[in-house]
This record gives sequence, structure tokens and C-alpha cells, in this order.
Amino acid sequence: MIRESFTLKLSGHLFDSEDLLPKYVDLIRELWKNGYRMAIVTGGGSLARRYIELGRKININESLLDMLGISASRLNAQLLAAALSDIAYLPIPTNLDEVFRAWSTGRLVITGGFQPGQSTATVALLISEFLGIKRLIDCANIDAVYTNDPRVDSNARKLDKVSISELMAILRSRTVAGTYDLLDPWALSIAQRSGITIYVIGCGKLSSLRRLITEGTSDGTVITP
Amino acid sequence: MIRESFTLKLSGHLFDSEDLLPKYVDLIRELWKNGYRMAIVTGGGSLARRYIELGRKININESLLDMLGISASRLNAQLLAAALSDIAYLPIPTNLDEVFRAWSTGRLVITGGFQPGQSTATVALLISEFLGIKRLIDCANIDAVYTNDPRVDSNARKLDKVSISELMAILRSRTVAGTYDLLDPWALSIAQRSGITIYVIGCGKLSSLRRLITEGTSDGTVITP
Amino acid sequence: MIRESFTLKLSGHLFDSEDLLPKYVDLIRELWKNGYRMAIVTGGGSLARRYIELGRKININESLLDMLGISASRLNAQLLAAALSDIAYLPIPTNLDEVFRAWSTGRLVITGGFQPGQSTATVALLISEFLGIKRLIDCANIDAVYTNDPRVDSNARKLDKVSISELMAILRSRTVAGTYDLLDPWALSIAQRSGITIYVIGCGKLSSLRRLITEGTSDGTVITP
Amino acid sequence: MIRESFTLKLSGHLFDSEDLLPKYVDLIRELWKNGYRMAIVTGGGSLARRYIELGRKININESLLDMLGISASRLNAQLLAAALSDIAYLPIPTNLDEVFRAWSTGRLVITGGFQPGQSTATVALLISEFLGIKRLIDCANIDAVYTNDPRVDSNARKLDKVSISELMAILRSRTVAGTYDLLDPWALSIAQRSGITIYVIGCGKLSSLRRLITEGTSDGTVITP
Amino acid sequence: MIRESFTLKLSGHLFDSEDLLPKYVDLIRELWKNGYRMAIVTGGGSLARRYIELGRKININESLLDMLGISASRLNAQLLAAALSDIAYLPIPTNLDEVFRAWSTGRLVITGGFQPGQSTATVALLISEFLGIKRLIDCANIDAVYTNDPRVDSNARKLDKVSISELMAILRSRTVAGTYDLLDPWALSIAQRSGITIYVIGCGKLSSLRRLITEGTSDGTVITP
Amino acid sequence: MIRESFTLKLSGHLFDSEDLLPKYVDLIRELWKNGYRMAIVTGGGSLARRYIELGRKININESLLDMLGISASRLNAQLLAAALSDIAYLPIPTNLDEVFRAWSTGRLVITGGFQPGQSTATVALLISEFLGIKRLIDCANIDAVYTNDPRVDSNARKLDKVSISELMAILRSRTVAGTYDLLDPWALSIAQRSGITIYVIGCGKLSSLRRLITEGTSDGTVITP
Ligand SMILES: Nc1ncnc2c1ncn2[C@@H]1O[C@H](COP(=O)(O)OP(=O)(O)OP(=O)(O)O)[C@@H](O)[C@H]1O
Ligand SMILES: Nc1ncnc2c1ncn2[C@@H]1O[C@H](COP(=O)(O)OP(=O)(O)OP(=O)(O)O)[C@@H](O)[C@H]1O
Ligand SMILES: Nc1ncnc2c1ncn2[C@@H]1O[C@H](COP(=O)(O)OP(=O)(O)OP(=O)(O)O)[C@@H](O)[C@H]1O
Ligand SMILES: Nc1ncnc2c1ncn2[C@@H]1O[C@H](COP(=O)(O)OP(=O)(O)OP(=O)(O)O)[C@@H](O)[C@H]1O
Ligand SMILES: Nc1ncnc2c1ncn2[C@@H]1O[C@H](COP(=O)(O)OP(=O)(O)OP(=O)(O)O)[C@@H](O)[C@H]1O
Ligand SMILES: [Co+2]
Ligand SMILES: [Co+2]
Ligand SMILES: [Co+2]
Ligand SMILES: [Co+2]
Ligand SMILES: [Co+2]
Ligand SMILES: [Co+2]
Ligand SMILES: [Mg+2]
Ligand SMILES: [Mg+2]
Repeated sequence: MIRESFTLKLSGHLFDSEDLLPKYVDLIRELWKNGYRMAIVTGGGSLARRYIELGRKININESLLDMLGISASRLNAQLLAAALSDIAYLPIPTNLDEVFRAWSTGRLVITGGFQPGQSTATVALLISEFLGIKRLIDCANIDAVYTNDPRVDSNARKLDKVSISELMAILRSRTVAGTYDLLDPWALSIAQRSGITIYVIGCGKLSSLRRLITEGTSDGTVITP
Repeated sequence: MIRESFTLKLSGHLFDSEDLLPKYVDLIRELWKNGYRMAIVTGGGSLARRYIELGRKININESLLDMLGISASRLNAQLLAAALSDIAYLPIPTNLDEVFRAWSTGRLVITGGFQPGQSTATVALLISEFLGIKRLIDCANIDAVYTNDPRVDSNARKLDKVSISELMAILRSRTVAGTYDLLDPWALSIAQRSGITIYVIGCGKLSSLRRLITEGTSDGTVITP
Repeated sequence: MIRESFTLKLSGHLFDSEDLLPKYVDLIRELWKNGYRMAIVTGGGSLARRYIELGRKININESLLDMLGISASRLNAQLLAAALSDIAYLPIPTNLDEVFRAWSTGRLVITGGFQPGQSTATVALLISEFLGIKRLIDCANIDAVYTNDPRVDSNARKLDKVSISELMAILRSRTVAGTYDLLDPWALSIAQRSGITIYVIGCGKLSSLRRLITEGTSDGTVITP
Repeated sequence: MIRESFTLKLSGHLFDSEDLLPKYVDLIRELWKNGYRMAIVTGGGSLARRYIELGRKININESLLDMLGISASRLNAQLLAAALSDIAYLPIPTNLDEVFRAWSTGRLVITGGFQPGQSTATVALLISEFLGIKRLIDCANIDAVYTNDPRVDSNARKLDKVSISELMAILRSRTVAGTYDLLDPWALSIAQRSGITIYVIGCGKLSSLRRLITEGTSDGTVITP
Repeated sequence: MIRESFTLKLSGHLFDSEDLLPKYVDLIRELWKNGYRMAIVTGGGSLARRYIELGRKININESLLDMLGISASRLNAQLLAAALSDIAYLPIPTNLDEVFRAWSTGRLVITGGFQPGQSTATVALLISEFLGIKRLIDCANIDAVYTNDPRVDSNARKLDKVSISELMAILRSRTVAGTYDLLDPWALSIAQRSGITIYVIGCGKLSSLRRLITEGTSDGTVITP
Repeated sequence: MIRESFTLKLSGHLFDSEDLLPKYVDLIRELWKNGYRMAIVTGGGSLARRYIELGRKININESLLDMLGISASRLNAQLLAAALSDIAYLPIPTNLDEVFRAWSTGRLVITGGFQPGQSTATVALLISEFLGIKRLIDCANIDAVYTNDPRVDSNARKLDKVSISELMAILRSRTVAGTYDLLDPWALSIAQRSGITIYVIGCGKLSSLRRLITEGTSDGTVITP
């Protein structure tokens, strides 16, 4: 069971589901009332993708496209914080200094992305490191880390437990270079230098998150520093 | 022909159309390069509606729902400003003080909404009044002002020209009270006290806007102070 | 007796009285120490009127005149917060985001106005709605709401209790349109959509406020949503 | 004739006069249009005194009283900037960083006070030094510097020209220690270390200022570094 | 023994010593855990001197040189706050408004300098006055106040106890005018008007600070208001 | 010859040299006056290293150590901007939004670092991409890119020209993993996705920079996208 503070990354795709979202709201409030302390980072999901696609059609540069994605992730964060306005901090912090200000009020801190060229997973690790938090739970758009992206490689194998350096080697050996949707090398290097354990689970079933937090049992991947 | 500064309110629904949006981007840049000076306010459109509906399902209060709508309108403003980043100001101003700072750099100023309980049309009038601008062009989700909402009342009659006080009387006499989607009394009272003319045209055809600006001919409604 | 949080609107004219002001300071501190939680909004009073008149003589536009009035109301707020600096928040919040930051520290929040074209009564309702507060006490420059402004209409009748929709009808039926000094339609519509009860009492006698808060008895007007 | 940039300190008492103020507004605009570049600092005048007196009655500490005086001086600055909104910067800068931002837009910069325990004359010297400006014109509530405050010492003698070190010696030798209303030692030491000339003239006659600027003739006191 | 809140000025030269600094970090945390409440101001020390000297070589003006010194003092403040990040506030406040925000979270507030032409000792007194704190402990680069700077005048005599007005007279009578490294007249005048006692001790021995705080015994100079 | 806008990364070690720094100040001003437009990013150099080492001794976490390094790099940026205060923007921007605001005034923009876990080289690429700049000149603490760090590997070979993907492969193949002092993979991936050419030259000789800018001849390494 994890009783210290933890960081929770929620896939932006959670905000596409009118069924799942209310359940997550209730679970987070329940955990908070039971004494769990956490910081939450939300992804941009399909909203980010839509505005980035629209932007690409009108020739917006990569940096400004990323900023649209960041604003989308912040809109998701704002929705969640508004639903939890009895316990959460508003307005949504947009950098580490504001995270510290929000955190020091004792309220639940929820953010989206921070900067172009940086995934929201990296933001979650930056916040963890900054606040001295040693566990990140990544509720992803997939149920675990695989040896390769299972949506493009049907031979990809699920990993139950993997060290950061092993995972870096696996990701590096993938023949086609490209973006690492789930976890990028920068995110992993922060986890490594500060000894942060990452739990990747799927956001599709609420039970994965509840079990991990209240019982300490992972049905996804544990990435050890 | 309107050659002084004007304010342009763009319906948020414009951002639903992958066809229209690029054309508006090109027209705005062309006008700017030809010496027209303007401030633009974007609505929240269907994105705002989606997040407000989602928020209502998870019991968010009216004030925080409005704030989600405001953030949605700002995302639209950011998309437009990013596409016009050679001439427009960033980041998106969120109040009148920031509008002044942005305006005094000489760049094109684009904003979304400002405050709960306030339409983006009112924002456009606040900005007009603040900057001493005497003309607001409202590119709406409908082609003109009618005696009643034509989507609910088939007897509604299109108005070519109407004074603000006549329009206020018409809106007040409508049997069913409710929200004034297009123009609310607060917006109208600002136009009145500061002598601002409002041109309502439809955003569906680019030619309405181009003709109004370059030839001064309205095919919508002219609201005189 | 009202024991939940409430919002208190103080007429700016209170700050003209060197006798009344210290008594309000003491009463507010006493209530706070007894566990009452509140947000306070101060009006601009005669200071606002003086600077607006001066500004009109030098041709300042309506928007910038309103901003002078807002700064005047903030100076009143700052005076009150400085006198209550053991319990109140400083600097004076100037928008809803800052109100939230201040409120989440647990200190007494005091503001003046927010935006041109908006009364401080509307600010008080925006703050109430934003923080989920259901009662606004308006300590006005008059002892109750009347069927018309008693200073211009000697037939005006005092209202003990009135619903928001009745009051809207009364205000609308007044032959001469104009500014609604006490409560404008925008303020009332926020109260209505969020179910906020408004108690209008006079600020001239401290006993009206004390009795309303500690005994729940109004000698002014109760406006029900 | 002074054609380089200069700093102008305007006594807060100017804002008590409905006759003088409009003339200053016109003169400043005329000078600006003729190519003179300046930064302006306004005093708090009788408004500051009124709020400080009120505050002292309700036991506000010295630091917070000074802050009320600063806010009063900023309200005066805002009134002036609003009247000159075609050429001046808004919102009113509140520290040197904001002064730089405002100055670099090329607009007329107007401020009030900055910090407790610091006169607006000192603010004017800090701004001069920061922007590399070598001349400060102090339009004071008195027509020149005297060997002592002429309002309390009838033997005080007017000084036409005095060096900073001589003036420091004169001020230091005054038997009764106390506040130096016109120019304090801190202000003088900044003028000295950065070689700034101070021209003290009275704000009561517009001609003193006009003549000093356009002809270079002082009918007050010239303080040389 | 001093159990109320106090302000602590730490000489910037403390940050030159890899031996002393960790001990101060431990002592401050220990005091905080034992219930002592304080605000800390750090000087710029040799880092400030180095950047100011470098800046003078490339012709930077006095105001901007002071700003470099302020940034150096803030870097020292940041180092200390980072070492105490379990109890201290971040980011480093840069003016009194931010000090209030930080102080109202209940965390340990640490700042550097504020403004050109102003010593960090003056900052410590401004903060004391603003927060209503009546004791300032100045851990200086020297063990006490002397009748003159002992580094230039070998006849200088150590003062055990001195009133502010006596000290002002002593400092004023020094033949060679100049900068008052330890305490300037502006700092002293704030202490005087608000009745703040200043304890000057040396920062070289940790025991001086510990004894003063826990036993109330000074081995330096007590300056009484 | 490069006449479009470019970004210039200056090694923090430049600020250790009282000889070189003034020459760089003069060259930058000369280039600016000749019409070259640039944004500059300064490293933290030995100052950053000193504060990070000091911080590590008092157990500061990695995130807060990086923030000390960022503040050090900003102090260098502030020194340079102060020396160029006739053309440069102040205060030092700390994120991309502030860079845009500064850039749109037409002044020379100088920054230090932005965020923990991110080199100042990456900041220079983020700014290039954001502003649509296609050339980055990296004045490094070494005269070119080598096949390995020449300070640890005496067999390292200088590279005259290399593509980003080749360089990524070279860096990845280095046996001992570790930090990439000069250019990290994140920096390179931004250059790649936005087609930015990086010129690495040594900061030790002013002639390398002058020749590259005015003649287009590199004596270091050209990294092509
Ligand atoms: N090795 C891998 N193992 C698992 N998933 C992978 C791997 N490589 C890429 N992926 C992809 O990563 C995605 C999961 O990442 P994530 O939960 O962050 O989703 P996302 O769409 O990026 O959402 P967000 O809006 O939060 O950014 C999956 O869609 C999966 O296809
Ligand atoms: N129907 C009405 N009933 C009561 N008062 C009314 C009515 N219509 C207008 N008023 C006017 O409203 C004023 C009371 O409003 P309020 O207390 O807000 O005063 P104010 O002068 O606006 O102060 P503030 O400085 O707070 O804005 C009275 O002066 C009264 O003449
Ligand atoms: N030696 C002196 N020579 C001239 N005036 C002096 C002297 N000492 C004190 N004073 C006083 O200084 C005042 C002029 O200062 P100033 O113009 O700043 O007025 P103020 O009331 O402080 O206005 P503000 O609102 O700008 O602060 C006069 O009222 C005068 O009595
Ligand atoms: N009358 C005096 N008595 C004692 N010290 C004096 C006196 N006048 C000048 N000094 C000088 O003041 C210095 C002490 O001031 P302080 O501790 O503030 O040092 P500092 O170098 O200014 O550090 P900081 O970095 O904090 O500004 C000593 O170096 C001493 O030489
Ligand atoms: N493959 C390589 N080729 C060249 N230099 C390398 C390489 N790998 C590591 N380095 C190191 O990179 C350093 C140059 O980087 P840079 O100019 O950024 O210096 P820095 O010390 O990081 O300065 P800053 O203060 O700007 O961060 C050199 O000290 C060199 O030893
Ligand atoms: Co996705
Ligand atoms: Co709509
Ligand atoms: Co009134
Ligand atoms: Co006065
Ligand atoms: Co020193
Ligand atoms: Co280095
Ligand atoms: Mg992702
Ligand atoms: Mg004065």
C-alpha cells in the first residue's frame, strides 16, 4: 500500500469518456478524504490531437502546435479541478514555481503540460522530483509497457517489471526511431537520477488504480530506478 | 469602406470548419497587410459546449462551467494567433490591462472570453470601448439579427437596420425570457453609452465580411447607437 | 442565524464616515473570531464619484472612467484589509483567480471592483457563485429595496421580501430607463441561476448587520432566488 | 532648452485643482507631440493624506499606511494616464522592471510611488538613474527650495542654485530633525552618485514648467550634482 | 529569550563558507521545529561584489549594478530556501506583496534584496515593519557596531548598547562621508518610527546567534528604538 | 553571410573572463547596429557549478540544484543585458511567453535557462523553433564537436560537418552513458523536427564568431538538420 505522496498522470483520453471521468472524480476525492496526498498531471488526449491537426493545416510551426496541445491538456486539468473544487487548487499551475505555491496551500494540485517539446509524462516526473515524491502512477491509454508499441508491432511483449536502464536499451534498439508516446528518454532520465519508481497501468479500468493504491498490487508495469 | 480600427467578433463555430478557418486566416492577414487595424475576439463554439456539458455531468457550478467555456474560447484564440504569429500578439490577453499592453506593441490583438457571466460579444464591446474603437463587426453563427431567434420562431423577421434602444425593446418583449445568445443587454448598454455601431453578419460566407470591410456594404444587420 | 460562509457588500459611502468605519472594523474582526467566514466587496463611494467627475472634465472615455472607479473601490478595500491585517489577505485580489488563491489560504478576502461596465454588487455575486456561497448581504447606501429609487420617486414603496423575478419585472417597468444603482439585471441574473439569496440592509446602523448575522432577522429587504 | 529625455515629478496637490490639471494634460501632450520624451511620477497629495489619517484612526501600522499613500499616488497617475491614453502607457507600472517594459514600448510612462518608507521624489530619481536620464524637474507644492521649510520658519531663504552636498549640509544642520517633505537624503544621494540635476519649481503656475522646458530658464532652484 | 517572531539578516559572506553554511541550515531548521517563527533576508556578499566589479568594467550604470547585486543576494536566498525546502517558501519573494503572500502560507520566508539604492538591512527592516515584527537580528560580517568602521579606523570602539538617535548622531559625525555598509540612515529611520530593536552580532560564530535567540544574551550590539 | 535572424548560445564560461566579455559586448552591439537580429542564451558556467556543488553539500535535491544553475545562468544574462541596456530587453525572460513579449518590442532578447532537466542549449533551440529562427550559433567551451568528449577521450576526432542523425548515432554509441555536456538528444531532436542548422564554434576567440556571422565561414562544426 502506498501511503506517502504520489504523482498521478492521467491519459488525456480519459476525458473522452463520459462514463469513466465521473468515476475517477469520485475515486480521487475518496482517496484524498482518506489521507492520500497526490499531484495530478493530465494529458491532452483527442482534444490536443484535434487542435494540432487543425493547426497543421494552417501551417502553424511545431513549437506553437505543441503549445496548442499544452493548452488542451490544461483544459482537461481545469475540468478535473473544477469538479474537485472543494479540494483542488485553481487556477491550473503552468510551471514548477506555481506548483510549489499551490502545493504549499495543502490543496490537491492538478496541472497539464508545461513546455513545447516535452511530454506530460515528463511534466509528471519534473513535479515528482521537484516535490521530492518517489512514486509516479501513469494511468495510460494502454494497460502496460510493451517491448514495442503493440498498436504497430503485434510481437510486442508485455513487461511486468523492468529497470529504467533496461527500458532505455529496449526503446533505443527499436529499429524505427521516432516519438516515444508513452515514456520518452528525458522522462526516464529524470526518474533515474532521482530514484523515482513509475507504475504504468491502463486508465480503462478504475480497479487497476484503486488496487495499486490501496493494496500495492500492479497489473501493469513497474519501472524501477 | 471602414478604414479606421475596428473590432471583429468571430463565432466559435468557425473553428469547427476546416474549410472556412484557413480562408479567414488568409483574409485577416491580407487586411492587416493592407493597413486595416483590428482587435479580434473569438467565441468558444462547440468546444465550449462540449466541456460545459461534460462539466455539468460532474456537478461543476455555473461559475466554473463558464470558466471552462472561457478557456475553450481562448484555445480558439490561440489557434488563430498561432496561425497569424507573424503579425499577432501572444500569449492571449485575458483582461483589459493585458489588451492594452498587447495593443501598444502594434501587433494584432486576439482574445477569447474574460469572466463568468459575460458573453464574448460583451468582451468585444468592452475592448472596443476601452481602445476607443467605434465599430464592432460580429461574424455570428447566424446571418443577421431577427425579431426573435429564427431557430425557435419561424415568424422571426430579419432586421436590416435597428437602433440599440429599439433592439432592447424587442428583446425585452420576447414572451419567453431566457439567454440572449447573440447579444445580451449588457453588451448593448456598453455600445449605447459609448456610441459604438455593431454590424452583425454571418460567418458562413467569407464574402460578407470582405464586402463589409472593403466596400462598407452590410448584408446582415446594422445596430446603431 | 447564518453560520455558513456569506458574502458582504459594503457601500463605498461607509468610507466617508470616520465614526462608522472603526465600528465595522471591530464587528468584522469579532465575527471572524467567532467563526463566521466571509468574503467582502467594497464600493467606490464618494471617492469614485470625485475621480470620475474629474476625469470626465478631461475627456476620459467611459471605460477608463470606470477603471478609476474600480481603483477607488480597491483603495477602500485596501484600507479595510490593512485595518484587519491580522486576519485579512493582501494585496487586494483583482479577479476571480486571485480570489481563489486568497480564499484557499483561509484568510479573510476583501476586494473592490473587477471590470468596467460592472457594479461592485455584481462582483459580490460573481464571487459568491464562484466560491459556492449562497448568501449575499448588501450593506447599501439605503435601508432597503424600494419599488423605485426613493430619492427620485416619493411614491416608492419599501419591499420586505421579493423574488428575483418579481424584482426584475419591477425594475423593468420603471418608466425612465437608466442605471440601476443598487442592483443591476446582470447581478440579479447571477443570483437567479445559482440560487443566491440577497439581503439588502442599510449600512448606516451597525445593528442591522449584527442582527441579520447573529439572529437572522432582516430589517431591510430579502430577495429570494 | 532641454531636448533630451527628462523625468517630471508632479506634486499630488495638482490633482486637487480642477483648473490646473486640464492645463497640465494639454501641456504634456503638446510637449510629447513636439518630440520631448519624459517619464512622469505623481505624488499622493491630499488624497494620500486623507486615507493615511483615516488609517491612523483605525490603528494601521506605518508600513501599511505608506502603502495606502502609494495607492493614492497611483490613482493620480492613473487619472493622468487615462487623460493621455492616446500617448501614455497603462496599467500604471509599480516597480522598475515594469517601468522598463513600459518605456521600451515608446509610450509616455507615468507612475506613482513604489515602496513604503520612500518618497515619490526618490521614485523619480530611481527611474531617472535606471533609464539613464540626467534631469529631473520637480513641480512641487512650493516654488523653490529654501534654507528651511518656509511654512514653519519665516526666516527661510530661497535658494536659486545649490549643489547636492551643500543642500545635504543645510538639511542636516536644521535643529529639529524630522521628515524632509520636499527632498530626502536618500533621493539626494541617488542624484549625486549618478550625476542627475534636479530643477525644483512650483506647480502652481504652468508658465514655470513651460519656460524651464522650452527656454531652459528656472525661476525655482537648480540643484547640481 | 525571544519567542515571538523575529527577522534575521544573514550577511552574504556566510555563503562563502562551506563550513558555516550547513550549520546555519541545521540551526534554522531546529529553531523552526521548536516553534520560532522568522523571516530571513540574505546579503549578496562576495558574489554581489564580483558581478558589480565585472559590470563596472563594462560601463553598467549604478542602478543596473545594484540590480546585479540584488540578483546575487536572491541567489543566496534561493540556495538557503532550497536547503530548507521542507519548511521554506519558494520562489524567493521580490517585494512586500509577495512577502505577505508567502508569509500567509505559514512557511519560512527567505528573501534577498528588493530595489536599487537600498541595502538588504533596509529590506529586513521594511519586512519587519510590514509584518509587525519588533526584533531584527543582523548576523553581520563584523561582530558588533563600532563608533566607526574598525577596518579603516583602528580607534573605533565597540558599542554594547546604543539608541537609534545616538547611533544616527555617531554615523553623521564621521568626518569622511560615505556609504554605511552595516546600517544606513534609511534603515535606522524605519526602525525608529516603528519601534524595532536591532541586535547586531557576528555571523562567524554560530553560538552568538543561538545564545541570543535561546537565552536572550547579546555579545554584539543592541540598538534600541 | 548570415543576414536573417539567428540565435546565439554563449557558454557560461565566457563570464569568467574579464578580457573576453567586454569584447563580446562590443561585437554584439556592433552587429545589432549593422542590422543583424538575434536572440541570445547564456550558460551558467563556473558560477552555476559553484552553487550546485555548494547545494549538493547541504543535500538539495536534483530539481532544486538545477534551479540554482538556472538562476546562475540568468545572472549572466542580466549582466550582459545590463551592459547592452541601450538595445536589450529587461527583465530577463524566464519562459517562451515572456520571450515572445520581449521579442515583439524589437529589442535584443537575452535569456538564461528555463527549467530543471534541460540544458541551455535546449533552451536556445526551443527559442529558435518558437520564433521561426533557422540558425543557432553555439559559442561553446570547446572549439567544435568531436566524436567523443576530447577532455576524457584523447582519440576523439573533430567533426567539420555532421548531420543530426549521424551525430545522434555517434553520441548513442559512446560506451559510457552519461550527460552530454555540449548537446543533448532533446536539443538535437528539436533541431531535427524544425530544420534548424547548428554551428558549434569555440567562444575563446572572438574571430570565430565574427567570421561565421559576417563571412559565413565556420572553423568549428556545422550540424545540418
Ligand atoms: N513500448 C510501448 N508500450 C506501450 N505503449 C506504447 C509503447 N510505445 C508507444 N506506445 C503507445 O503509447 C500510448 C500510451 O501513452 P499515453 O497514455 O500517454 O497516451 P496518449 O495518447 O499520449 O495520451 P495523453 O493525452 O495523455 O498524452 C499508447 O497509445 C501506445 O500505443
Ligand atoms: N429601487 C431602488 N431601491 C432602493 N435604492 C435604489 C433603488 N434604485 C436606485 N437606488 C439607489 O441605490 C443606492 C444604493 O446603492 P449602493 O449602496 O450601492 O450605493 P452606491 O452609492 O452605489 O455605493 P457604492 O460606492 O458601494 O457603489 C441609493 O443611493 C438609492 O438612491
Ligand atoms: N527646505 C524646504 N524648502 C522648500 N520646501 C520645504 C522645505 N522643507 C520642507 N518643505 C515642504 O515641502 C513641501 C513641498 O513638497 P511636495 O511638492 O513634494 O509636496 P507634497 O505635499 O509632499 O506633495 P506630494 O503629494 O507630491 O508628495 C512644501 O509643502 C514645503 O512646506
Ligand atoms: N560603524 C561600523 N561598525 C561596524 N562595522 C562597520 C561600521 N561601518 C562600516 N562597517 C562595515 O560593515 C560591514 C558589515 O556589514 P554586513 O554584514 O552587511 O556586510 P556586507 O559585506 O555588507 O554583507 P552583505 O553581503 O550582507 O551586504 C563590515 O565589513 C564593516 O567593515
Ligand atoms: N562530443 C563532444 N564534443 C565536444 N565537446 C564535448 C563532447 N562531449 C562533451 N563535451 C564537453 O562539452 C563542453 C562544452 O559545452 P558548453 O560550451 O555548453 O560548456 P558548459 O560548461 O556546459 O557551459 P555552460 O555554462 O554554457 O553550460 C566541453 O567542456 C566538452 O568537454
Ligand atoms: Co494520444
Ligand atoms: Co454558439
Ligand atoms: Co453612490
Ligand atoms: Co503634501
Ligand atoms: Co560585504
Ligand atoms: Co561547464
Ligand atoms: Mg502521451
Ligand atoms: Mg512630497
